[in-house]
Amino acid sequence: MLNKTGNMQTFLGCDDPYDEAKIVIFGAPYDSTTSNRPGARFGPAAMRHDSHGLETYSPYQDADLEDAAIYDAGELELPFGRPEPALDAVEAATAQILADDKIPIMLGGEHLVTLGAIRAAAAKYPNLHIIHLDAHADLREEYLGQNLSHATVIRRCHDILGDGKIYQFGIRSGAKEEFEWAKTHAALEKFGLIGFANMAKSLGDAPVYFTLDLDVLDPSAFPGTGTPEAGGVTFTELLAAMMHLKQLNVVGCDLVELAPHLDTTGISTATACKILRELLLILS
Amino acid sequence: MLNKTGNMQTFLGCDDPYDEAKIVIFGAPYDSTTSNRPGARFGPAAMRHDSHGLETYSPYQDADLEDAAIYDAGELELPFGRPEPALDAVEAATAQILADDKIPIMLGGEHLVTLGAIRAAAAKYPNLHIIHLDAHADLREEYLGQNLSHATVIRRCHDILGDGKIYQFGIRSGAKEEFEWAKTHAALEKFGLIGFANMAKSLGDAPVYFTLDLDVLDPSAFPGTGTPEAGGVTFTELLAAMMHLKQLNVVGCDLVELAPHLDTTGISTATACKILRELLLILS
Amino acid sequence: MLNKTGNMQTFLGCDDPYDEAKIVIFGAPYDSTTSNRPGARFGPAAMRHDSHGLETYSPYQDADLEDAAIYDAGELELPFGRPEPALDAVEAATAQILADDKIPIMLGGEHLVTLGAIRAAAAKYPNLHIIHLDAHADLREEYLGQNLSHATVIRRCHDILGDGKIYQFGIRSGAKEEFEWAKTHAALEKFGLIGFANMAKSLGDAPVYFTLDLDVLDPSAFPGTGTPEAGGVTFTELLAAMMHLKQLNVVGCDLVELAPHLDTTGISTATACKILRELLLILS
Amino acid sequence: MLNKTGNMQTFLGCDDPYDEAKIVIFGAPYDSTTSNRPGARFGPAAMRHDSHGLETYSPYQDADLEDAAIYDAGELELPFGRPEPALDAVEAATAQILADDKIPIMLGGEHLVTLGAIRAAAAKYPNLHIIHLDAHADLREEYLGQNLSHATVIRRCHDILGDGKIYQFGIRSGAKEEFEWAKTHAALEKFGLIGFANMAKSLGDAPVYFTLDLDVLDPSAFPGTGTPEAGGVTFTELLAAMMHLKQLNVVGCDLVELAPHLDTTGISTATACKILRELLLILS
Amino acid sequence: MLNKTGNMQTFLGCDDPYDEAKIVIFGAPYDSTTSNRPGARFGPAAMRHDSHGLETYSPYQDADLEDAAIYDAGELELPFGRPEPALDAVEAATAQILADDKIPIMLGGEHLVTLGAIRAAAAKYPNLHIIHLDAHADLREEYLGQNLSHATVIRRCHDILGDGKIYQFGIRSGAKEEFEWAKTHAALEKFGLIGFANMAKSLGDAPVYFTLDLDVLDPSAFPGTGTPEAGGVTFTELLAAMMHLKQLNVVGCDLVELAPHLDTTGISTATACKILRELLLILS
Amino acid sequence: MLNKTGNMQTFLGCDDPYDEAKIVIFGAPYDSTTSNRPGARFGPAAMRHDSHGLETYSPYQDADLEDAAIYDAGELELPFGRPEPALDAVEAATAQILADDKIPIMLGGEHLVTLGAIRAAAAKYPNLHIIHLDAHADLREEYLGQNLSHATVIRRCHDILGDGKIYQFGIRSGAKEEFEWAKTHAALEKFGLIGFANMAKSLGDAPVYFTLDLDVLDPSAFPGTGTPEAGGVTFTELLAAMMHLKQLNVVGCDLVELAPHLDTTGISTATACKILRELLLILS
Repeated sequence: MLNKTGNMQTFLGCDDPYDEAKIVIFGAPYDSTTSNRPGARFGPAAMRHDSHGLETYSPYQDADLEDAAIYDAGELELPFGRPEPALDAVEAATAQILADDKIPIMLGGEHLVTLGAIRAAAAKYPNLHIIHLDAHADLREEYLGQNLSHATVIRRCHDILGDGKIYQFGIRSGAKEEFEWAKTHAALEKFGLIGFANMAKSLGDAPVYFTLDLDVLDPSAFPGTGTPEAGGVTFTELLAAMMHLKQLNVVGCDLVELAPHLDTTGISTATACKILRELLLILS
Repeated sequence: MLNKTGNMQTFLGCDDPYDEAKIVIFGAPYDSTTSNRPGARFGPAAMRHDSHGLETYSPYQDADLEDAAIYDAGELELPFGRPEPALDAVEAATAQILADDKIPIMLGGEHLVTLGAIRAAAAKYPNLHIIHLDAHADLREEYLGQNLSHATVIRRCHDILGDGKIYQFGIRSGAKEEFEWAKTHAALEKFGLIGFANMAKSLGDAPVYFTLDLDVLDPSAFPGTGTPEAGGVTFTELLAAMMHLKQLNVVGCDLVELAPHLDTTGISTATACKILRELLLILS
Repeated sequence: MLNKTGNMQTFLGCDDPYDEAKIVIFGAPYDSTTSNRPGARFGPAAMRHDSHGLETYSPYQDADLEDAAIYDAGELELPFGRPEPALDAVEAATAQILADDKIPIMLGGEHLVTLGAIRAAAAKYPNLHIIHLDAHADLREEYLGQNLSHATVIRRCHDILGDGKIYQFGIRSGAKEEFEWAKTHAALEKFGLIGFANMAKSLGDAPVYFTLDLDVLDPSAFPGTGTPEAGGVTFTELLAAMMHLKQLNVVGCDLVELAPHLDTTGISTATACKILRELLLILS
Repeated sequence: MLNKTGNMQTFLGCDDPYDEAKIVIFGAPYDSTTSNRPGARFGPAAMRHDSHGLETYSPYQDADLEDAAIYDAGELELPFGRPEPALDAVEAATAQILADDKIPIMLGGEHLVTLGAIRAAAAKYPNLHIIHLDAHADLREEYLGQNLSHATVIRRCHDILGDGKIYQFGIRSGAKEEFEWAKTHAALEKFGLIGFANMAKSLGDAPVYFTLDLDVLDPSAFPGTGTPEAGGVTFTELLAAMMHLKQLNVVGCDLVELAPHLDTTGISTATACKILRELLLILS
Repeated sequence: MLNKTGNMQTFLGCDDPYDEAKIVIFGAPYDSTTSNRPGARFGPAAMRHDSHGLETYSPYQDADLEDAAIYDAGELELPFGRPEPALDAVEAATAQILADDKIPIMLGGEHLVTLGAIRAAAAKYPNLHIIHLDAHADLREEYLGQNLSHATVIRRCHDILGDGKIYQFGIRSGAKEEFEWAKTHAALEKFGLIGFANMAKSLGDAPVYFTLDLDVLDPSAFPGTGTPEAGGVTFTELLAAMMHLKQLNVVGCDLVELAPHLDTTGISTATACKILRELLLILS
Repeated sequence: MLNKTGNMQTFLGCDDPYDEAKIVIFGAPYDSTTSNRPGARFGPAAMRHDSHGLETYSPYQDADLEDAAIYDAGELELPFGRPEPALDAVEAATAQILADDKIPIMLGGEHLVTLGAIRAAAAKYPNLHIIHLDAHADLREEYLGQNLSHATVIRRCHDILGDGKIYQFGIRSGAKEEFEWAKTHAALEKFGLIGFANMAKSLGDAPVYFTLDLDVLDPSAFPGTGTPEAGGVTFTELLAAMMHLKQLNVVGCDLVELAPHLDTTGISTATACKILRELLLILS
């Protein structure tokens, strides 16, 4: 049947109207501060396109995306180069979704875009906590003279939130100074996710922002990212940890650092899609 | 700005409403009878995505897609395997567009989908002529026992239209029987496009369907196709020939056989997008 | 030395004459109903070519392909498009091998080709059981209006065999209805292979057809397949499960869904070759 | 022989000391404002590495790089994100080379880096002219709200140099406004290089900066670039035009927009290397 | 139909018995002296596999491979590393074919394998001439201390044949010494094929060996080769030149330096197949 | 800042002068005896280039490459083809480093280069032991008639060292004869690394050469190698085993068989870099 009302493109099964949605997805296709291999700008579009190779039903949760109320807003239009305009746009979009009492889920793009979302979330939730899964600490004070960078983003989040609010897992790369700094300012678990369950229990009903740098996965499972780091977690380990989010007060999320063109096999994008499906069902 | 009304995906600048459009684009993502390398099903989606690396303005024609009235209907949902349901869906969509007095432009998909469009066009225009650019003659009576195949499609069109209606250019591959058959049933120019201008002059105001198998281009310019054939025409030669369509009564068109994944450099998709932009401006 | 008697191409070490062979390999290069990424048609040829990077000797079983009696018949010539002629050809080839009291091993191609083999095997062995390893349940009644599809193939097998004959492992993707249906009609283990050993013990000397959709493997180990699904089994887990086949009455096998071009690293094809070597030695 | 004095990496045959060199090469690995496909940051390193597949001798000019006095300074360390620090670093490096009465040859990186070099060259040569070969006009006043962008770089150069100083060739993409603007402010030849010889004659001994966006080449010859545009010039046409530079007072050059990872065949990098070899010999 | 007599693999349509064949194809999968990018060892197998995407009929010559008497012997088994055993094996195979009064057509492999064939051909035909199409002169006396190398192969042929027997075309890369040496010892046309027709006329009925290094083609048409050199000839130019071989006494041929894995688009292999088809028809 | 003293290229953080270094890295870019997929010649250069995506700090060892005294000598210039000159050059370079009381770390190249290093190390340390991690036994007496081959290299080392000196781990491929031979001449652990710790304890202060064929890793983690073998060890398992080297008297090392072009995702090179970083810190 010819469609006369326009070609809507959404992530698999996320086609509810904005007003009825409890969750709102949007893309933040910015990667200008990436210092190694760029390309994360293409992540959200690749996820929408390839999501249609996935089922809406999850045998892990016995739940179906068709039963969830989710709206996909498509991509923000972000200029490349200077990060400030991109961060402002991300902040505005996140603030709008939060103001409408919906949960924003941002698809990066490089990790720096998280800062825009945290600005908006911290404005609404002063007691905001961050759960941060990543191969890299992202705690530098500056990188090559720039204080806004994918390598400084969690440090910038700490500027807003202060000590005791950031929980990091899977971290296996960084400067010595980052690991030292984390000892007094954040809760950093090296390499894995073993402490995730305990951390989740400790958070009670505090507002939580979940930021998932997909390079926390082992490069064998997720090669399509700018800076792959051997020694990561498996998909199954990640999924098991994410299930603990069900008991938390999650107010916002992002998935970042899928650079789809770096992996011509497509398994990175397929895996990112599956993680997003599971995350959406966890939050629904 | 967050978009609250849904993420519309169209080919670059083709975002007019259906009712106001003079041209309607739709995708026919079917490639099940491809006998060599499949993947043309991904052609239309790749063209929409990559079109945004192109300008809407054409310095070749000093014209702009923003000034044209074009609607992009997205993809038809076609099952894989048996060709009949796919051809029926293509025929129905084409018939609807023609009934609304608009020009259909179909993006393949393999070349067989052209048959569905020709059925609809011939029903409205009994005197329909076909201009067919291709590396392959596509004139077999059957192929591996099947009469509906990318290798038989123009022969099936001839079943509908009869002798003297089909003009073929660029043909440089086929069975001996195909070239023999063409001598009495079609006008076939081997290798190039030299006779295109004269042919165009001879057609007067007869209704014309233009079917462009992109593998008519040389593989150096267009590697992303199932069966590349050395010795093809250049982009500039093709563009020059297409300019003669301006004087004709073109009632329908298609671009087929882009298999984007076969060319990771992306030049095939970029070139297909540019050809579509020029074709849209020619018809506007 | 110049070979004057023709260039025979076989899977590594499978060069015995048909009449002396106990196992017969053949390729079924059909993938027209693949709904996501096609290319499995190239699987058998890639396996033959790349098998020569492998040793004939298996340190896992302390056995050598040179000592086994195996004939490789090459590829069936199958038309693309409609599945019926392909299934008929697969059924005829399988029936012939079974009639000669040999074990057929089919190399796909997409999973639908299994149906042709099951028709032949069930005709000879009315009490046939199927052991099915896959990421996908393949239990739909129809898919996009088609009842012959890679997504319906095991359901079609059930049409022939009835309840209690199908054992599924590793399944981690499907519609909710498929998982529901399986509860009363098949034995479906989600995600893994833990119950494989017990299942094997329970089968006694019943005739067994072993169908291995290689996407049961985790995409990290086997990216070269049309629809990779995160969360699969490892090569070592698969190999361990397959060792239990030694005690069973295996009357036929297939390996399907290798799409070699999707994985330019070649590890998918290399892994498929190794699995086939081990399977051949298990059956010898 | 083990090298005990360090592993020097230079473009093929460009291993003279700085003080003795007449030409100085340096890399400007910045691509943060690229709006389509990034990756030009890897251009200079790829050219150094792959140059060793080339000969030092040119049969086109009967001359040898071994006989020329050229120093290769390696890469500037440029931060990603905001363009200002990168442009400042490029300007400083260019100014230093010019102050030492040598000819700078910069390897991009995206086209924006040219602006830094032009700032330095215009400071030394107030009457500076620019010969600009490119597929894109790069004449926008701003792009997505940014005035420093690969899409605005020649307009920014015009801000410095004024009317009548910029000669553009090969241009086949841009907004209508760019082509309109060029009519009164620059000399723009669409599509090709036919007027190059006449232009060269007209310049007399004016100081000339030659900026070569390699995407002026046809995508068939040079697919490895962010935004390939069909309809470009051939390698032979480009080389013929460049030979006219011999009669000019060239004070600086750059080659930009090679994104080597986009072309896994390596022909783009090999071609860029050959063009650089010829350019170095022209200037020697 | 199941094939019970073994899976014969030949280049398209070359399935006549050895004794009846007038032309014998064999592969020489050796590339150990390749100094840049290896992989030509996979050339012959790729050509056999991909040839089945081609038609047996040539519209260029109105002739069909099915009508020619050609045997394909498959690959020689050649060890890697030291070149001597490989050259001996090539020489022996060529000598055998020549002794049986057939025309050998060798598929490389790197260019060094030509030396083995020339040894055998010169033994039978003392007045042997060589027509050599290549991007590279291959006339070095030694390369990195080795006198048997892809970079010295034509010089080694000259050791056997002496002055006035070697005709080189398309040469656009080499050391200065090679071009100097050629002035007195060989007939070398730089860059193109313009003199090919005159050369062909001059040869009369002298025995001719035709060695075609496929990198004589422009990299846009043939990227899949170890050392691509911009500025080559087109497929059409090459084909036109080859037609002059019809009037010559061609006693042996080779096609070398296809490295198929370097070009994932497959156009290099497809083009090589088409060139071989035309060559086979020219010689038939 | 423009660098006026030359563009030094080293592995990340390995920029100490030769005289002050305790460890010396050099590349051995030879792969001419590779029997399956060549390309290991590009391993060392890729590691240098991509190492700059890594941090100098190791959270595994809480140590930093900046604090270690390491010199990177770049690549040896090795001819392709015959292995003897390459082995001689490797032996000479290794001998020189050992004579200066430094630890050589060679980056292959194919595994045969290890033989050159062992010759030099055994000359200085008559009681030399080898710890050999690999998927392949490499114990053949000859391969395709050649006794110097990547498939014979450890057997050739045994010719020098004799029984009881060679410890092999991870071996999962070889001819039956190799496994048989190892039973009396070497200590071979199939498949894994479980016995590594005990082996390390048993070696006391004997001089040890550690040769790491990176294909011991599972292909999912390390696809970029000539002959990937399913069923390998994980990065974490490998790293854990390597930590036992701290207690040993390691006098030389190599990492071989990275063929970077076979893995366009780059994870193989990134993983090899990380392993080298850890190895350098272990030895420092």
